[in-house]
Amino acid sequence: MKEKNSNKLNIKLDEIKDPKFLLGLNYKQLAELSSLIRNDILENTAKYGGHLSSNLGVVELTIALHRSFDFLKDKLLFDVGHQCYTHKILTGRSLKGLRSENGISGFIKCSESPYDIFEAGHSSTSLSAAQGFAIARDLNKEKYDVVALIGDASIVSGLALEALNNIAPNNNKIIIVLNDNGMSISKPTGGINKLFTKISSGAGYNNFKVKYKNSLSKTKFGKRIFAFTSKIKNWLKSKLIKPNIFIDMGFSYIGPVDGHNIKAIEKALARAKNTTKSVVVHVCTTKGKGYKPAENDQTGYWHGVTPFEIETGIPKNMHEGYASWSHIYSDITIREMEANEKLFLISPATIKGAGLDEAFEKFKNRTLDVGISEEHAVTLASGLCLNSYHPIISIYSTFLQRSYDEIIHDLARINANVTFLIERSGLIGEDGETHQGIYDVAFLRTIPNTTIAMASTINEANKLYKLSLDNNGPFFIRIPRTITKLEENYKDEEILLNSWLHLKKDNSKVAVVGVGPLLRELETLINEEKINCNIFNALFLNKIDNLTLNKLLEMETIFIYDPYSTELGLVDFLRSELFKNGFKGRLFSRCVENEFVTKATKNAQLEKYQLLPSQMVAFIKQNII
Amino acid sequence: MKEKNSNKLNIKLDEIKDPKFLLGLNYKQLAELSSLIRNDILENTAKYGGHLSSNLGVVELTIALHRSFDFLKDKLLFDVGHQCYTHKILTGRSLKGLRSENGISGFIKCSESPYDIFEAGHSSTSLSAAQGFAIARDLNKEKYDVVALIGDASIVSGLALEALNNIAPNNNKIIIVLNDNGMSISKPTGGINKLFTKISSGAGYNNFKVKYKNSLSKTKFGKRIFAFTSKIKNWLKSKLIKPNIFIDMGFSYIGPVDGHNIKAIEKALARAKNTTKSVVVHVCTTKGKGYKPAENDQTGYWHGVTPFEIETGIPKNMHEGYASWSHIYSDITIREMEANEKLFLISPATIKGAGLDEAFEKFKNRTLDVGISEEHAVTLASGLCLNSYHPIISIYSTFLQRSYDEIIHDLARINANVTFLIERSGLIGEDGETHQGIYDVAFLRTIPNTTIAMASTINEANKLYKLSLDNNGPFFIRIPRTITKLEENYKDEEILLNSWLHLKKDNSKVAVVGVGPLLRELETLINEEKINCNIFNALFLNKIDNLTLNKLLEMETIFIYDPYSTELGLVDFLRSELFKNGFKGRLFSRCVENEFVTKATKNAQLEKYQLLPSQMVAFIKQNII
Repeated sequence: MKEKNSNKLNIKLDEIKDPKFLLGLNYKQLAELSSLIRNDILENTAKYGGHLSSNLGVVELTIALHRSFDFLKDKLLFDVGHQCYTHKILTGRSLKGLRSENGISGFIKCSESPYDIFEAGHSSTSLSAAQGFAIARDLNKEKYDVVALIGDASIVSGLALEALNNIAPNNNKIIIVLNDNGMSISKPTGGINKLFTKISSGAGYNNFKVKYKNSLSKTKFGKRIFAFTSKIKNWLKSKLIKPNIFIDMGFSYIGPVDGHNIKAIEKALARAKNTTKSVVVHVCTTKGKGYKPAENDQTGYWHGVTPFEIETGIPKNMHEGYASWSHIYSDITIREMEANEKLFLISPATIKGAGLDEAFEKFKNRTLDVGISEEHAVTLASGLCLNSYHPIISIYSTFLQRSYDEIIHDLARINANVTFLIERSGLIGEDGETHQGIYDVAFLRTIPNTTIAMASTINEANKLYKLSLDNNGPFFIRIPRTITKLEENYKDEEILLNSWLHLKKDNSKVAVVGVGPLLRELETLINEEKINCNIFNALFLNKIDNLTLNKLLEMETIFIYDPYSTELGLVDFLRSELFKNGFKGRLFSRCVENEFVTKATKNAQLEKYQLLPSQMVAFIKQNII
Repeated sequence: MKEKNSNKLNIKLDEIKDPKFLLGLNYKQLAELSSLIRNDILENTAKYGGHLSSNLGVVELTIALHRSFDFLKDKLLFDVGHQCYTHKILTGRSLKGLRSENGISGFIKCSESPYDIFEAGHSSTSLSAAQGFAIARDLNKEKYDVVALIGDASIVSGLALEALNNIAPNNNKIIIVLNDNGMSISKPTGGINKLFTKISSGAGYNNFKVKYKNSLSKTKFGKRIFAFTSKIKNWLKSKLIKPNIFIDMGFSYIGPVDGHNIKAIEKALARAKNTTKSVVVHVCTTKGKGYKPAENDQTGYWHGVTPFEIETGIPKNMHEGYASWSHIYSDITIREMEANEKLFLISPATIKGAGLDEAFEKFKNRTLDVGISEEHAVTLASGLCLNSYHPIISIYSTFLQRSYDEIIHDLARINANVTFLIERSGLIGEDGETHQGIYDVAFLRTIPNTTIAMASTINEANKLYKLSLDNNGPFFIRIPRTITKLEENYKDEEILLNSWLHLKKDNSKVAVVGVGPLLRELETLINEEKINCNIFNALFLNKIDNLTLNKLLEMETIFIYDPYSTELGLVDFLRSELFKNGFKGRLFSRCVENEFVTKATKNAQLEKYQLLPSQMVAFIKQNII
């Protein structure tokens, strides 16, 4: 009897070709599959690093989506792609080698599979793109579903909210699956997220349903009544579901649905296919599901991880005596905030990534996590500046792009005193072309009144930070995504605004100009190889002092070494200054190519552009006369 | 009897010093004052140009605000400032000379008055800034109200929606006055705006109130009941006001209120002062109130105007035989859309400003106004590109800044085929430092895969447009805010991607490189003065062909003339190319200073930077050897 349900699942994840096999499985087998997938995600993320919590949360949801649609015809757009691992497995891609140069990407990648149709790395783009897909479908008079999968933290970002406002009244139907885990990277704090919590905590229809079902299911006859009154159910639903932001805007709304119940999700998706209006299917999932440390995480620690021990949760690559630059700056932040009551720290949902947990814990009144709202973070800061507060905005280089207008219009225009800690400046390695931090100097130097700086030592970091607090207008400090030795042994030099440092003085007419911690590695090699040259530390990337400029103008050969930016950063700045001032010598430069840099280790990326200190020193030796 | 009410208003607008006098007026006098102010706005806007409709709509609302608060202590933040003329009059600033170099600004200007505390020119910034103000107030333990006045089109932009989501659950109280005219620049089409219409068309409490009042007011006793049951009223209100997006998010909500009834607005504001949570006061106004052509306007024609005849509504400066560059491009757009079914036109609420009304009327299925949602406009376009449509995005240079991240992440990264029509590129005159279109080349050339181009003739405009449609990736065409002669007499030359034109060939070793229609004016002067030099037309601003580059490398003297951008545009691009390739000659350049350019006529701004063609020709003569 019931043999169908007792079939043992006989599948190896590595042998999956496409998701069609899912239709042949029963719910018990699907549960087994879910647990296989979960283990696979855990093992490979522990090995290669990657996005853990978000991927563990959507295993059942992804299975239900692939059973409910044919995504060679229908379109599935992932927001960000922090949650695409199950999708990758189900569409025939092993997680082995995840995020490494020759393995699969940690994000959606059109070149990998026909099931990947829309790439992203920044949040909240899927809804806008989905509208483009749906408009094209309808203009072409084609019939298929366009489905966007988006999380509760991404959906409250400005871009996604603009999209919702535009999609709702439009006739081009889209199915929006809201993956609500009440978490995303860290706990979202916005009004809309509180509303989600209220909805999913079960007021209205769902409470009623449980009570009604309980009361009826006590008798056989009752069970049949419950099963056959779907019309009544739908009517009741429409009466008991309280209006929410989606209904207000003009969407159909289905939910909340248990995101770990494949059958329930499938039912909701079947209803969603039949709505005439664009529809939001509200699915509640548990982030980190199946791995306790991740399930219990409230801060976002388990959102994106480096390789770790599964049993203990401890990272594999601990370096005694070293700290990340993020933590160096986070310690300075705490010290400065302790000393100055007018400092106010803002983070757009990247507290953990920037190592700012302690600062947020310590200064509850003077810190604010605005969620994925980079634009709001900046304009909010302008309001604080106008009231004599000095905001410190911690933001990833790549996400800073989203507040470009606000930096110009609301900060630089009024020359507001504000410190930006630009996290993950420079090449960032495995996250690939959507996350590179190599463009910020280029776009920030187009803006009047800005100061852009980068330290090469911890001592310099301290001094630059202090300088940024000293009423110098919008001040951007670039922070690389690397670690550094805590004990350092560099000469302690005074740092003045816009003044570069002459690290190595030499009688030759050769100068090497460089930036950041990698310059210090180059300096060591130059000293080891006893190369006769001057070395200048370009602490400021869009300003130079006259003394240094005049020294450089006397050189016969100058090498610029900027392993953290494209050509339109320091290289272009210095070249312009030199030639405007009549430099007639030889100029060599090495920097990152102005292109979209694909995934690889940071070292492999540096090597590709001949930017390793060892490569640079060889280049200098080769071209020195 | 009732002598108080019959007092004649005895006020000259020019003599107002500060808004305190308002408290001494009765409602009849306030009505007279409103009408005086309205006439003043109409007359001065007709004379100097400016924002008309929005300012006519908020006369009573602004009076009520200044009677309800003391804005030397309380804070009033205007969104954009399209609606600040009444505020300027009431705070002692005459509209005479509006927007001219020595008159008052058309926007909020902190240097003009202590009542102006927050400047803007781009939309949707007021709520974020208000949160900054409120946080500072509460950290300082001060007591005053922070009031943000924002329109219904601005409040649905991403930045404002991010702010709403952040303000609602926060304890720092803000009073948001939503000026809902169902219009803003042109008719907003989003789901949230439809919701506003539903609310303000009177479902719920307001309908009930009218009926209840009517039934009671038939007897004296009934009138007294109506007057004294405020507790019941509030209870009823809470039951009858349907949840809306603000209530869903966690705001208190008051409204809708008749925005031309000063007493009603004052009552609502009094209630708003007493809420504990941040509150939205929903005020319904009629845009263009008091001037029929503006009241009847559905397209935004009367939003921002140049000088016009009040009686007829006809613009004063009509130029027979000339057309604006916007209209030249709009005509090309229509022709190309007729010829190619895969073109899709997107505008973020600037249809009228860009002269695209006819295209929108003609191609209803292939045009979309997304409202003030520049980010959504771009990412939506990426969805269309991925489905073989070619989007044309018309956007003002200054607003393009808001989609910088999306241009990189969603278009350039996938090398999407899309045409941008960058309206109001270059110096824009009277709108001042928040609206200049002089930065776009600088920030667009930091992005891989982009092509940035600018035509100097109508013929070139046609050819560049065609080139942009020919699968060349993200293609940006800059459009100046000037007019041009429809009949032109230039040599018809073939245009190839990234190739510059050699307009004037000469045996001398002198070259003038320039861009746009002003280059053609310079060319005329050079020919008139018989100056021996080559002239090159830099049609592409971030690319150059080898043939031209080699010709330039042979020159002894090069003059770069870019009257449309800062130094980090064409000047920096060409300088870099020349010096990278060993140029040893003399290089002179003239372009706009990289600073925030304040209001003046476009010609005065050109003159300031020595960029008038007559100034440039003098400069060339002076420096030619």
